[in-house]
Amino acid sequence: MVGMLFPHLSEKLPGRKLKKRAGEEEQQAQSKKALKKQQKEAEKAAKKAEKQAKLAAEQQETDEDDFAKDRYGICPMVQSQQKLDRVLVRVQDLTPEKAEQQIWVRARIHTSRAKGKQCFLVLRHQQSTVQALLAVGDRASKQMVKFAANLTKESIIDVEAVVKKVEQKIESCSQQDVELHVERIFVISQSEARLPLQLEDAVRPEGEGDEVRNGGEGRATVNQDTRLDNRVIDLRTTTSQAIFRLQSGVCQLFRDTLINKGFVEIQTPKIISAASEGGANVFTVSYFKTSAYLAQSPQLYKQMCICADFDKVFCVGPVFRAEDSNTHRHLTEFVGLDIEMAFNYHYHEVIDSITDTMVQIFKGLRDRFQTEIQTVNKQYPSEPFKFLEPTLRLEYKEGVAMLRAAGVEMGDEEDLSTPNEKLLGRLVKEKYDTDFYVLDKYPLAVRPFYTMPDPNNPKYSNSYDMFMRGEEILSGAQRVHDAQLLTERAMHHGIDLEKIKAYIDSFRYGAPPHAGGGIGLERVTMLYLGLHNVRQTSMFPRDPKRLTP
Amino acid sequence: MVGMLFPHLSEKLPGRKLKKRAGEEEQQAQSKKALKKQQKEAEKAAKKAEKQAKLAAEQQETDEDDFAKDRYGICPMVQSQQKLDRVLVRVQDLTPEKAEQQIWVRARIHTSRAKGKQCFLVLRHQQSTVQALLAVGDRASKQMVKFAANLTKESIIDVEAVVKKVEQKIESCSQQDVELHVERIFVISQSEARLPLQLEDAVRPEGEGDEVRNGGEGRATVNQDTRLDNRVIDLRTTTSQAIFRLQSGVCQLFRDTLINKGFVEIQTPKIISAASEGGANVFTVSYFKTSAYLAQSPQLYKQMCICADFDKVFCVGPVFRAEDSNTHRHLTEFVGLDIEMAFNYHYHEVIDSITDTMVQIFKGLRDRFQTEIQTVNKQYPSEPFKFLEPTLRLEYKEGVAMLRAAGVEMGDEEDLSTPNEKLLGRLVKEKYDTDFYVLDKYPLAVRPFYTMPDPNNPKYSNSYDMFMRGEEILSGAQRVHDAQLLTERAMHHGIDLEKIKAYIDSFRYGAPPHAGGGIGLERVTMLYLGLHNVRQTSMFPRDPKRLTP
Repeated sequence: MVGMLFPHLSEKLPGRKLKKRAGEEEQQAQSKKALKKQQKEAEKAAKKAEKQAKLAAEQQETDEDDFAKDRYGICPMVQSQQKLDRVLVRVQDLTPEKAEQQIWVRARIHTSRAKGKQCFLVLRHQQSTVQALLAVGDRASKQMVKFAANLTKESIIDVEAVVKKVEQKIESCSQQDVELHVERIFVISQSEARLPLQLEDAVRPEGEGDEVRNGGEGRATVNQDTRLDNRVIDLRTTTSQAIFRLQSGVCQLFRDTLINKGFVEIQTPKIISAASEGGANVFTVSYFKTSAYLAQSPQLYKQMCICADFDKVFCVGPVFRAEDSNTHRHLTEFVGLDIEMAFNYHYHEVIDSITDTMVQIFKGLRDRFQTEIQTVNKQYPSEPFKFLEPTLRLEYKEGVAMLRAAGVEMGDEEDLSTPNEKLLGRLVKEKYDTDFYVLDKYPLAVRPFYTMPDPNNPKYSNSYDMFMRGEEILSGAQRVHDAQLLTERAMHHGIDLEKIKAYIDSFRYGAPPHAGGGIGLERVTMLYLGLHNVRQTSMFPRDPKRLTP
Repeated sequence: MVGMLFPHLSEKLPGRKLKKRAGEEEQQAQSKKALKKQQKEAEKAAKKAEKQAKLAAEQQETDEDDFAKDRYGICPMVQSQQKLDRVLVRVQDLTPEKAEQQIWVRARIHTSRAKGKQCFLVLRHQQSTVQALLAVGDRASKQMVKFAANLTKESIIDVEAVVKKVEQKIESCSQQDVELHVERIFVISQSEARLPLQLEDAVRPEGEGDEVRNGGEGRATVNQDTRLDNRVIDLRTTTSQAIFRLQSGVCQLFRDTLINKGFVEIQTPKIISAASEGGANVFTVSYFKTSAYLAQSPQLYKQMCICADFDKVFCVGPVFRAEDSNTHRHLTEFVGLDIEMAFNYHYHEVIDSITDTMVQIFKGLRDRFQTEIQTVNKQYPSEPFKFLEPTLRLEYKEGVAMLRAAGVEMGDEEDLSTPNEKLLGRLVKEKYDTDFYVLDKYPLAVRPFYTMPDPNNPKYSNSYDMFMRGEEILSGAQRVHDAQLLTERAMHHGIDLEKIKAYIDSFRYGAPPHAGGGIGLERVTMLYLGLHNVRQTSMFPRDPKRLTP
């Protein structure tokens, strides 16, 4: 049957090639000592050659009468030559319930270790691993075991095997209660032998690697640039698999929650004719015979959708910032989760909607992604993420007062520096036991021109930031929905009115009061998991120094 | 109570101002005729002045004793001065069940018509309209009715009213069984009087407008550029509201179906270092001291995710094409719904997954967006969208044979022209009664370098397009997952290997066989609804000539 399935089994992994030794006759004369040495070497070489010749003869002989020769090999490239009803069981589904069943599995070779007449493999698929065993016997020949032992790590194989319960848990695998007794093994895609990084190094907790290295043992960790340069391999680690599955969950929870609240998803253009948030930090694009910009946010467009009566809108998409800052939390391209919403009388209606959405995300992650959270925690330990219901909302003034009480000197209308943000996060955590809170009513001076001033105090504004573990993840505000006031505010900020004419005109034909905010996806994932660099939560991060892969 | 709610009622709509007439003494002498004319004019002016003075006096008098003066007016800008528990009922929820209830509604003034001591308003919110009536009487003064009659179209108002059942259906409104008897009316946001386009013109079926105009009556329709230049107003029409709600549904159905199938959502970078689909048609971005490109597709990145063991991935995001083509179906920026999936043995596993996803979308739209479909059909009539289960799959050869049988001359390895695509769509519809089908096994020569050749015939490939109403909405293929073959194919296409090194290297460390495809969101929406221009299904379309709004 195998012959039919893989009719063109074309190659076997090459055995070690015999090296030819030549020109030994020319080595004579010289000193006695040298002669003796040469003699010794010649003997050694002869012995080795003899041994290798024997091995090769053996190989050839047994190749011919290898009873298992149809049970292993390298498949021709899968080019959809045939349809096949064969069911492939996933590694994560290999449990004691499948004991004694004969099944097919497709997986990567995570590790391989030969031991006498046996070969132990660890097979990996995504976050799951299982032990597999080949032993010389009825079903496997010596050659077949050798073939398996020589397979390169990360190669993808199809294996037919019987699932066997084990008496002692296999601690090194995710599937601890079973192992596979392999009966057939075929390579679907071979990996090159030399990997640019080792997966076991890439999942080693940072501390462990360094500490041991300092002690002289040198168990390696993988530095960030090596990871990112070889992202395809780095993304295969259990940690990466968990991070990006959880991130997919953040998007899903964000959208599902908003759709349940009656929001409509919109798509906003990324190529725009004028810088949406002012001229600085914007990328320029050649656009046929003119030039354009990459949107720094969907701000203007989501507001235009509000003016167009969509009432509650969200969008998920890339946001571009030409900031030449190489920090742990800045990217030049990131994913914005954006919300805009008409409200009736008070922008706190919108804050409540956003904080509830965040709480639904936190709960969904906690309840549905516990495996992923724990996987990441193994490599990057952190405290579980804490939040309150309803969400804590402090006024900016209160935040400043807390910082001052802790010894910080700052003005009333001064923006929060990053260290002060973090300090305030710690103070809030101590006092209220939450990793998530809203800081409301920022000074007007530190917010964009379209921010609605506080009606009761012209120094403040109807604007807010939201924080996770002391770092900002959302910035938002009630927007000015009156063309007259918007014009005044733009002029106050020195913005060229001609360039934002279409934007201002949007408010001339009746505009509902509205507010919104923009969330950074990578930051939410990073901070929820307690990670420390936003590049860990961006699959292919972009910063001033990195454009590849 | 109203006084408390809107304590700073600051303005009333101004009455007509009296024009002062001056310098009449200086007009003497001249001819008798002129004198007579002047006398007549003076008399006329005097009469007018007298009348206006009387009106003004009346106005002032009645302003003072307007018993309803707290029941109407223009609110100060909503700046979140106060929180208010008032419930606003949505127009769409105004049904006979609410008869005799006193409620508040926020809506736009769609039309306003004064008639003696009454004023009829049509109030609109999104896709819904309701008639509202003010009549001079106990609850409304003459001034209040006049105030309402003078409100500009598209202004947003808060109205307190009693819901009344009507005896005769109000055909012109979506809420046909009730009307509102207005007791209070306050302006939340005033529209400028002169609208750049009239909503009733913007929803008029194309044919109707033109025909009547040819007949001399001149009922206008709105041309596409006027619509797009004033998109914020154009998007308020029932048709636009319906189109973009349905489009939001396409995205949601796409993702929900795939997540149910075990797909993971990924985010791929849009700023890339090398043109993903070859050097033509790519936008260039200034990137700090170097330059970069805008991704023409997430192709390379979704494949890298497959190599990184995510197995089944999708992404929804902008795609950029610097094509200088001004057709009904090309945009320079559109939204790609992208899928990539590892398969076991045959790429038809992936085709089946994609066609099932499309079928789930079609069913979801049919079942959940019937109101929207019918709304759009009123302006743009079309046949309901038909599809088969399982989806019809034809081979390219068969398509060519059908075209030849219909008189088309074309070579075996020639690509389908747009007219031939459409013709084939009609032939398929006639023969199989479906608006959706797959054309499989395209000639290798017309596909990108990363397309897997057909193992049985080197002139063909494991690639496919999918069509809706005879237009392509998806292009896809099994990809070459072998670094060696990929290198050969890239060289064959004359691609600079150095530029795609990271891409090719992705396949060196074990890569599963995989296939996928990219769907154009705007095209799916357009073709599902039977529309004829992709700009109708892009909120803020981008083409070589349009970058704003």
